[in-house]
Amino acid sequence: MATITTRTGQTMDRQAMDSMLRRRMFYTPAFEIYGGVAGLFDYGPPGCALQANLIETWRKHFVLEEDMLEVDCSVLTPHDVFKTSGHVDKFADWMCKDPKNGEILRADHFVEAVLEARLKGDKEARGQKVEEKEEDPKKKKKKHKSVAVQLDDAVVKEYEEVLAQIDNYDGDQLGQLIKKFELKNPETGCEPSPPVPFNLMFQTSIGPSSNLAGFLRPETAQGQFLNFHKLLEFNMQGMPFASASIGKSYRNEISPRAGLLRVREFLMAEIEHYVDPDGGKKHPRFTEVEDIELVLLDKETQLSGKTDTKKITIGKAVKDKVVDNETLGYFIARIHLFLEKIGVDMSKVRFRQHMANEMAHYACDCWDAELLTSYGWIECVGCADRSAYDLTVHKNKTGAPLVVREKLNEPITEHKWVLELDKKKFGPQFKKDGKVVAEVLEERLTQEQLETFANELESNGSFVVDVAGVASGKATVSKDLVKIEYKTIVKHVKEYTPNVIEPSFGIGRILYSLIEHNFWTRGSEGGDDARGVLSFPPSVAPTKVLIVPLSKNEEFSPIARKMGQKLRALGISSRVDDSGATIGKRYSRNDELGTPFGITIDFQTVKDGSVTLRERDSTTQVRADEAKILEAVQAMVNGSKLWKDIQSELPKFEGQELEVR
Amino acid sequence: MATITTRTGQTMDRQAMDSMLRRRMFYTPAFEIYGGVAGLFDYGPPGCALQANLIETWRKHFVLEEDMLEVDCSVLTPHDVFKTSGHVDKFADWMCKDPKNGEILRADHFVEAVLEARLKGDKEARGQKVEEKEEDPKKKKKKHKSVAVQLDDAVVKEYEEVLAQIDNYDGDQLGQLIKKFELKNPETGCEPSPPVPFNLMFQTSIGPSSNLAGFLRPETAQGQFLNFHKLLEFNMQGMPFASASIGKSYRNEISPRAGLLRVREFLMAEIEHYVDPDGGKKHPRFTEVEDIELVLLDKETQLSGKTDTKKITIGKAVKDKVVDNETLGYFIARIHLFLEKIGVDMSKVRFRQHMANEMAHYACDCWDAELLTSYGWIECVGCADRSAYDLTVHKNKTGAPLVVREKLNEPITEHKWVLELDKKKFGPQFKKDGKVVAEVLEERLTQEQLETFANELESNGSFVVDVAGVASGKATVSKDLVKIEYKTIVKHVKEYTPNVIEPSFGIGRILYSLIEHNFWTRGSEGGDDARGVLSFPPSVAPTKVLIVPLSKNEEFSPIARKMGQKLRALGISSRVDDSGATIGKRYSRNDELGTPFGITIDFQTVKDGSVTLRERDSTTQVRADEAKILEAVQAMVNGSKLWKDIQSELPKFEGQELEVR
Repeated sequence: MATITTRTGQTMDRQAMDSMLRRRMFYTPAFEIYGGVAGLFDYGPPGCALQANLIETWRKHFVLEEDMLEVDCSVLTPHDVFKTSGHVDKFADWMCKDPKNGEILRADHFVEAVLEARLKGDKEARGQKVEEKEEDPKKKKKKHKSVAVQLDDAVVKEYEEVLAQIDNYDGDQLGQLIKKFELKNPETGCEPSPPVPFNLMFQTSIGPSSNLAGFLRPETAQGQFLNFHKLLEFNMQGMPFASASIGKSYRNEISPRAGLLRVREFLMAEIEHYVDPDGGKKHPRFTEVEDIELVLLDKETQLSGKTDTKKITIGKAVKDKVVDNETLGYFIARIHLFLEKIGVDMSKVRFRQHMANEMAHYACDCWDAELLTSYGWIECVGCADRSAYDLTVHKNKTGAPLVVREKLNEPITEHKWVLELDKKKFGPQFKKDGKVVAEVLEERLTQEQLETFANELESNGSFVVDVAGVASGKATVSKDLVKIEYKTIVKHVKEYTPNVIEPSFGIGRILYSLIEHNFWTRGSEGGDDARGVLSFPPSVAPTKVLIVPLSKNEEFSPIARKMGQKLRALGISSRVDDSGATIGKRYSRNDELGTPFGITIDFQTVKDGSVTLRERDSTTQVRADEAKILEAVQAMVNGSKLWKDIQSELPKFEGQELEVR
Repeated sequence: MATITTRTGQTMDRQAMDSMLRRRMFYTPAFEIYGGVAGLFDYGPPGCALQANLIETWRKHFVLEEDMLEVDCSVLTPHDVFKTSGHVDKFADWMCKDPKNGEILRADHFVEAVLEARLKGDKEARGQKVEEKEEDPKKKKKKHKSVAVQLDDAVVKEYEEVLAQIDNYDGDQLGQLIKKFELKNPETGCEPSPPVPFNLMFQTSIGPSSNLAGFLRPETAQGQFLNFHKLLEFNMQGMPFASASIGKSYRNEISPRAGLLRVREFLMAEIEHYVDPDGGKKHPRFTEVEDIELVLLDKETQLSGKTDTKKITIGKAVKDKVVDNETLGYFIARIHLFLEKIGVDMSKVRFRQHMANEMAHYACDCWDAELLTSYGWIECVGCADRSAYDLTVHKNKTGAPLVVREKLNEPITEHKWVLELDKKKFGPQFKKDGKVVAEVLEERLTQEQLETFANELESNGSFVVDVAGVASGKATVSKDLVKIEYKTIVKHVKEYTPNVIEPSFGIGRILYSLIEHNFWTRGSEGGDDARGVLSFPPSVAPTKVLIVPLSKNEEFSPIARKMGQKLRALGISSRVDDSGATIGKRYSRNDELGTPFGITIDFQTVKDGSVTLRERDSTTQVRADEAKILEAVQAMVNGSKLWKDIQSELPKFEGQELEVR
């Protein structure tokens, strides 16, 4: 576990926090009474409310603020869609098996863990101080024990170079590393089997006849892309625009660990922003964010083996081409503002750029918002420029017009070589190869090739073209089948496939990191009297107000109930705690739940309608009549006032004497 | 299609509505560009917003109003959980196959359709007027064509009796009906194969080794039950209480039809209210609802072959034992209030009681809220008393304490026969049968049996007990192994398994029915100029305000943008339509989207800040300064004022002259 400091300067005690989260039912392993299933969790009431508030904030910050088109698409997805998108073939991790105990290992994590253990053993043998490395929950299956054995300097260097590019190896290469370095599973002393790909999508079959294979989506994106044409129409052809979706996705992780950070079922919020690739992907509202300072870790720095970040405005980052374009930069800045709004500790945020070999092959730039936790730096938001890849592959597969057609104010005149097929003759000539040959001729030839072929038709009456999809690899095309002419074309309409900028949020990871960033303890550090506090901002706190009748006196109960109703009418969630516990205990319980405000009803309330208001982080109190207190709470929940404003407006209250009545 | 009248007295034109819903992208078949998959739909922006507003209203009406404990549980569920709950064995429909074309038929729907077609043919042959029967989308695969052939009177009677209890047949019986009546698939003229069960759960496999079978949950309930113990603890042992969950569920329907009404992936909102079965299941807030009048269709009426409803207060229904208990009655009334709040046409609502043979075997009473649509009466909410079934089976399977232990104020003294085992001797004696014999002795014996066995031990030194799980079916127990004594027991703690009342909402079905209930057309009925309107209440309407700049004049655009920001700050969603279309066209478009209010910005606005406000249903307008208009909109959205209040407060505006400028 990495050593992390809380906001209050304490050493973060994850064990204490975990125990508190379990006790207060923020989340819990799913199916626990049946022994549980790794990577599946249930959210209890506070976790569920926190998640709902994060989603609501996200929707306001992104969807409403920018008029995005929110959709809710099917999770069940037929095979063909993910075949086209590349997920059937490529959405896999490499796994190998221990021949002795049958244990299944994720190949890259296994290689990494064994080499790291050897390097640690080397350091111990050399008598160097071994620092606990930050644990990366996405990578380690488990920590391997090190044995103090000194290695040759050259070996150390080789291991370090392998580790630096561990994300870069395919299955064969990982298999070779296992052989070369004689890597054994410490559990059994055996060398695992050669890595094989394991597709991470959950498969099922749709309908009664079992012949329609389907998957649970591993991301919400494809559903949005498939609806692009309808969304563009809904948006009355206006460009650029964005669609957005909030929903569950599924990945069949080989060995899920680290609580909410690597799970098999998770809530995502994704935006697909469609932009014309011409004109440098400008964004009309970029000026609103250009002065925002971000902490960036760019790819050059990482490739040089370092992790030094720089603080730089997004305006300068785009100008210097550190970030590829304005639209990508705009969303990175908006993500930063969102994280700030929900109460993430901004000193524990960085934006890390993907290295070339790490990015999907179609992406042209990608930045992850990473949050520092006791598990290390956690990727919580990805922000990628997916180029025109997705819309293009689905368009090519289905023929659906996933393009934008814009009327040009000024027509454009082009001179170019154009090929026309005689379809009637073409089919009978090429038979089953007709479609693939036609596709090459109509869509794949460059202007240079067309000119050459035109000349050959003229001189020889035919030409030969490479066609990968036919048996001979070539097709001979004679002049009765095609016509190639140099034409003047006047275009009144511009047609293009938009590029997609995709900010993609893992809500569960954000939720967990947010909890860690806001956890601290009151009382002596690590002592028995240490009590947990979760200092969520009022807007995202699961419950906003705890209503505390001083005692079980029956006069208090109708007042408490009515106060709950009034708060509800203001849209503010509250809970009444009329248990017999002391006021102090009841407040402690709610500090653990992150409830920012407490209102106490006492005998004075019955007489004059005044109540006390307590603030969670400072534990200070004010007293005023109920209407004023509710108004104050509303102002703090909607963010228009802070506790210090309220303290200067309403009389302070020192209420200790009440507790002993 | 059943003939349905709109709120405005028009004949409901479903085709016109469907075409409008598609054009405005309320929802759309999922994966349409790949040919689509039956029973899977995507919600476009207005459908998605409508769904979000229904959910928000639901959460306020149920979860917040009653301090329910909301949880969010895993959809992926391991096999064992659904084995215990009975879903693996029983959650199935009967299907048969056409031997010629391989078509898969749902057996009950097939029998029903063929018999109904024959009855229709009989009526035609007799020269009777044939009324189009209401289509039930849950039942028919497709309408079978009738041929005018007269049947014997006795045959007609037999067919009618079969149809009246079609939900009552199992697979064998359906197979016998097919044989007996020689039912053929009209597509092929063939008799389908005997019915076999088809489990409706989607199956998958969890983890890399493929040996953990899992399902997609068909309801959210089980996740809530499994967490009962933790929820009770979270609720500080307080009873009664309710948990609630909103999330997707999945059912692999044999042949989904009828749009959103029968789908394979759907959003549910479910409440599990836990109550002590002792004391008649009273509800503390029942008095708040007892005078609410409901339209009930009870089981006795249905069993007598009628569908006459009666209007009766829920108080009287519970008193007369038409509805089993107060808690069930309370939730039925709360469901009624919810449907009213979201804008359902209450003249198209009835609560239908399940007949004995229709209910799950463990339920003791169940009522469906059914909404009348052009597809007939649609079950949109179920409200069942599930008794202690679920908690009991999971407790028995896992040993988890899914019970309530309440400290008794007055201890209870009981005198009874108690059996004690000598575990040390017992195991060696019975070996592998030990566990099952012990279970019978310790848990299954009645007081009468214990007394008899005590006497036999005394006289014979042993007794013989029936044990189904051992080879001989009996076990002989001697007195060195057990002691049976008549004891006085003082209980300080009452332990019981709560009963569960479950209101369960199909959000997609409610959403569709709500759309139908609020659809009507303006202009001449059925004419080309007929324009659709969706009269949603402001609180659930997808977008609340359309901001309409009179023209593309550049002075209007910043005013529109600022107005959008002000509305956002008030929590009110709006859209700007600055397209070049006429004002009339822009308003028409938004009537189709159900947007209740339109604000027009014109040249007068630039001069004096006044704007016009248009109401969707009446198309009347008022004019005032912006602040007053926004205040009026806010009051109408939060429900504190109606349009007629605003009309009496603000000056009327006749704005036709603006359109021609």
